[in-house]
Formats: sequence, structure tokens, C-alpha cells
Amino acid sequence: MIYLDNAATTKPSKKAFDRACEYVTEKFYNPSALYKEGYAVQSELKKARSALLSKVADELSFELIFTSCGTESDNQAIFSFAKRGNAVTTEGEHSAVLSPFGELKNRAIAESRYAPLLSDGRVDVEKLLSLVDEKTSFVSVMHVNNEIGAINDINAIAKAVKQKNSRVIFHSDGVQAYGKIPFKLSKDVDLYSVSAHKIGGLKGVGALVKRKSLTLPAYILGGGQESNRRSGTENTFGIKQFEYAAEEKFAGLKENYEKITEYREKLWSLLDKDIYLRLSSENGSPYILSVSAVGLRGEILQRMADDNGLIIATGSACSSNAKMRYSRIVLACGYKENVADGVLRLSFSPENTENEVEKAAEILNTIGRELKNRMK
Amino acid sequence: MIYLDNAATTKPSKKAFDRACEYVTEKFYNPSALYKEGYAVQSELKKARSALLSKVADELSFELIFTSCGTESDNQAIFSFAKRGNAVTTEGEHSAVLSPFGELKNRAIAESRYAPLLSDGRVDVEKLLSLVDEKTSFVSVMHVNNEIGAINDINAIAKAVKQKNSRVIFHSDGVQAYGKIPFKLSKDVDLYSVSAHKIGGLKGVGALVKRKSLTLPAYILGGGQESNRRSGTENTFGIKQFEYAAEEKFAGLKENYEKITEYREKLWSLLDKDIYLRLSSENGSPYILSVSAVGLRGEILQRMADDNGLIIATGSACSSNAKMRYSRIVLACGYKENVADGVLRLSFSPENTENEVEKAAEILNTIGRELKNRMK
Repeated sequence: MIYLDNAATTKPSKKAFDRACEYVTEKFYNPSALYKEGYAVQSELKKARSALLSKVADELSFELIFTSCGTESDNQAIFSFAKRGNAVTTEGEHSAVLSPFGELKNRAIAESRYAPLLSDGRVDVEKLLSLVDEKTSFVSVMHVNNEIGAINDINAIAKAVKQKNSRVIFHSDGVQAYGKIPFKLSKDVDLYSVSAHKIGGLKGVGALVKRKSLTLPAYILGGGQESNRRSGTENTFGIKQFEYAAEEKFAGLKENYEKITEYREKLWSLLDKDIYLRLSSENGSPYILSVSAVGLRGEILQRMADDNGLIIATGSACSSNAKMRYSRIVLACGYKENVADGVLRLSFSPENTENEVEKAAEILNTIGRELKNRMK
Repeated sequence: MIYLDNAATTKPSKKAFDRACEYVTEKFYNPSALYKEGYAVQSELKKARSALLSKVADELSFELIFTSCGTESDNQAIFSFAKRGNAVTTEGEHSAVLSPFGELKNRAIAESRYAPLLSDGRVDVEKLLSLVDEKTSFVSVMHVNNEIGAINDINAIAKAVKQKNSRVIFHSDGVQAYGKIPFKLSKDVDLYSVSAHKIGGLKGVGALVKRKSLTLPAYILGGGQESNRRSGTENTFGIKQFEYAAEEKFAGLKENYEKITEYREKLWSLLDKDIYLRLSSENGSPYILSVSAVGLRGEILQRMADDNGLIIATGSACSSNAKMRYSRIVLACGYKENVADGVLRLSFSPENTENEVEKAAEILNTIGRELKNRMK
């Protein structure tokens, strides 16, 4: 099988997994325990915290809190700070941001405002800024769009937002960016969500990066772990495996970026242009190539691809339960329903090979032609 | 090292870990993905859900939602239903219940009421019932106390509570009971929290058992996983490892219960009664033996034990960050501060051996006498 659904989840790094195994077999102690074996594990968590944080932020200005997933990080950020007046986000967000924003409205906590997207999937910054006013408490703009791969310049956007209202808390969902896109947080960004399983880590591990001077209330309360910002016994094995997987990915980040860019362009160059329309811009994350088989059903193509040994997505796997017929994001980019209906998301990892990319194009062309002929 | 802090966390089952490894190496797919490999993982989650639920509840009346830990389960239960009037709990609860109850008061969501304990650590049911009135929305009573091991008859308590006010939602923290105490939930219990890492599972995995007819809102919102009650990509590896670890523990539950009861009584019979006072009742969970070296400092004894190859706790590891001098629970049982100050919690697992128990008693007697002599 050729796996091109790495934006949904990645195969965990076996090397990182094996390295972390000692936290299951030997160092399984509760990190909050008051004996030396417990302290030793606590200090290993500290190392992981520092290693994971330093990859994207200055440790003097930022700190990192472990959570159970990117979704939890987003929820904690939003429900902690979107508390009065209005909160602003974009139409391109992941449901981990959009659902809490819907809840702000449902519970009458704050007015929710949504900035439209440009045709390449980035947020329309001018329109976003026009939604920010004196009553805005919170702004959330995703770093890399999970369906299209568009990259928002969040440092610049955060700066512009704060120039309009310096009291705004600025958050970004960095789940599709962390470990893939060269990037450092500026001080204008207050909160940044990341996830382990998108870069060779395990499911069930995430983190929330925060500006040190910002007081973050706990969203899950209890024993006071994570300096009282996230209670619950720490997932030491998952956290260490995340540290090691991130180490691998960040060590090869630039090299991977170039390789994956070649994959994306090679795949696109080999695809039959009579069938496929490219949606992802060249300036987006190379890890995601979104195309549309205009007039065909992406869902059917996905199944045909699967039967031919190629695993791809139609849209975000995370919204599969919503049973949405069309990709919300692609519609938000301004495409018609016949385009949105044919969307295929092809997402890479450094573990993919050039040969896989070539074979994938072959399969996609074959099934595209087959389905098109069937439709005649 | 002899490990007698199994109430804080247990060594994960290697067998269950190895069995679950295929969810890292092969079946790593996103369970929400719309291709057959994703569906296959989803159906494995369904199996785990059913296996874990059926051990403690009737599958016709109850269902199970995966969370990231027992603490999250408690938070979701409390913040979902303790919403008006007053909410009642006990002075013996874990901080995963007490902290959210404190927050109910801080945020003026509901009045928090606390029922006192009997000297053996069980809740005083009469006094608990006197706190329940027409305005009570929610009652939470832990199943097995994590410091003393006292067992509350939660089915009977839930029944009595509902006779007083049938609209009350009844929750129990079952973290120290699940997989250890023979037990089935009655229909009077609405919600029940469990955790994987207390029975050979991994840290970072928990579940909330709920009565099917109860509408449970999501606490973490997003992609709509867990039938819209807990979003975030499911921790498939951790969940399957939990299923397998629970399978082992429940298969040996009765046998383990008897063996551990022998351990507890043997350890107590070997301890020097001039030094140690027994706090845990014979009717409590055999997995926890709480004693006090009256007049001595538990903290110092713990360190001495550690230096001699015995790992034990002074109280709940989960409240280590609170830097509380005395065990809150032991004071709630009515003991004086000189007793609370000397508390040691010795907690077993079926992996402990009789020989370890004998050695532990020897070490505890030696260090107890040594410290007592030093104090003279």
C-alpha cells in the first residue's frame, strides 16, 4: 500500500518508539511521586518539554504544556480566553477550532466572527482585521490549512491584530506546521497548538505552547500537574516518544521540505490535467497537495484508489463524522460544488519514496479516466 | 526495588503492550478515515469499548467514551451536570473531583457541598443524604478511596440519593476500583470514571462509562469523535493496550483479590505495632494498606524506604504539587495531625510476590525503629 494520507495521521517512528520503551518497562513511575524514581521521570518530562518547545520558540519567552491532543490544546486556548465581546477566527479552521467557536455562540460566551479565505486557502487578512475591534478578546488563525496546505503568515497577522487591539490574545493551530515548516514564533503569538501523531508521534499526545507572561487557566483540573495548567497523570511514554520523533523530524526539516516539495511537484506534473485541477498553491505547505477531479465524486475515487493500493483522503478525516457532502474549506476558497465534490487530498511524509509518488500518479490517472468513462 | 506504590501507577503489562504494538507498526491509520483501513481500526475501537464496558456494566443500559485519563472523565462528568443549585460530594474525593468542585464555587456555577467521612474512610451516608435536596443537580461519591482504600457502596448510595431527588445525576470515580473490586454498576449510577494506568495500562488513557439514556455533552469539541462526546484523534494504541491489560486483570480478578488480601494481612501482621497504626479497614480494598508511624514523619520514612529498596507513598502522588503537609483524607477520617503526619500508603499489584511483602515489612520495621531511636 502507498500511504498518502499523512495529514490525517502518520506512521509512528519505530526508532522513537523503541527509544521511549524504557518508560513502559523500567521508568514507569508516576512523575508526581515524591521518591527519586518519580523525580527522575519528572526531570525527563522537563527535558522533553524544553526540546519540543525550543524547536519553534524562544525558551525565555515561551513555555509548553502537555495535553492529550491538538484538539484539547485548541479547546483550552479558546475557552480560556474567548470570554467576552467577540472572538475572531477564519472559515478555514479545523473543526477543533470551529466547534468551540460555535459553542461560544451557543453558550452566549462571546460573539463568534469568521474571516473569509482567499482562493489559495489563506485567510483574507484585510477582512480578518476589519472584524477585530475594541471588543475582540481572542483571535485564532491556523498556521497551515489541513485540507489545502495554505500557509498563513501568523507572525505578521498577529502583529497586525495587536496593532488594532493590543489586548487581544492571539492563538494559532500549528498542528500541520510543527515539524514540517521552517518557523519560529514571534512574541505577538500568545498560544500555539501542536500534535504528536502528525509527525511520527503517537495518537493521544499534544501540547500547547504559551507566552510565559500569559496566565493560562487549567481546562482539566485535579492533581495540579503541568504547573496547575493541565491535571492528570502525565503520559510519560507518549511524551518521550513525541520528543524523539520531533527530534528526528526537526533534524531533517529543511531536507525533508525540499524532498517533499519535489514529490508534490512531481506528482502534480504526472497527473492528467484533463481530469485533475490543482487547488493547492505552490506557496503552500509541500506536505499537502489538494486536487479536484472536477465533475467526479472524490469519495468514489478514494475507494477505487484504495482498491488499487493507494490510500488518500477526500478531505479532512476529522470531519468524517459530520457526513458533509462537500469540503467546507474548498467552498470557502470560492470553488463551486462540482469542484468541492471531486476533492482529493494527497499528503506526504518523508518516509514516502519517489517511486511511490510515481505509482500514485499512475493509479490516480487510471482510476480518474476509468470513472470519467463510466460517467459518459 | 520492591514497588508498593501501585495506587499511584502500575507497571504497564508487557504482554498487553506487545499485543497492541500492531496499532503502531501496521494499523496506525486514523480511525475516522473513510477507507477500509480506517474503518478496520474504528471497528477495533468498538471491540475495545465493548470489552472494557462489559466488565462493569450491562451493555444494554450503559455505553463507554474514551478520554485521556480518569481526571478528564471526572471533569467532563462534573462540568456537564453540576450546573445549577448545588452539587454534593465527599471530603474523601481525589483532587480530580475536588478541584472541579472548587471551581463550581469559584465560577458561581453551583454551590459545592461536602459530606464528611467515617473513621474508616467511607462517606457518612446519612450526612451525605442530608446535603441532598430539591436543588441538588449532581452527586459524586468515589468508589474506592485512593489513600485509605475504603469502599463506598455506590449502588446503594446512588439509590438512596435518587429516592431523595430523582433528578440528580450520580457520578462515581471508579479509578481505584476498576479491575480490582468485583462489582457491577446498577442503573442508579449515571456516570463512572476509569483509568488505564492503574491496572497495567498506559498513562494517557481513560474512559467515562455513562448510562445510555443520559445526554452527555462534549467537554473537548472538534471533529466529533466518540459519537460527538469527545473529539480528538483516538489513541488507538493506548486504547487497545488498555483493553488487553483489562482483559488480564479481570480474568484474574477474584484470584488476585484473594492473593492481595493475603498480602495486605501478611504485611500488617509482620509490622511492628509499637511503631505502626493501621488506618485501612479490613473491609476496604485489599490493594491499599494505609498505616501511620504515629509521631514520625512519613516523608522521611518514605525516603529511607527508597534508600533501602522499597518504593512507597506518603499519600496520594497526585497531590504532590499541592505541597500539603498532612494527608487531607486522613484528617477527614478524624485522625489528629500526629497521625496524619506519619501516613504511609502501601499499595499492591498482582505482580508483587509474597517474598516482596515479607521484605517490605522487614524494611519498614528497621527504618521505623531507626527513626524512632533518632527522635529520642
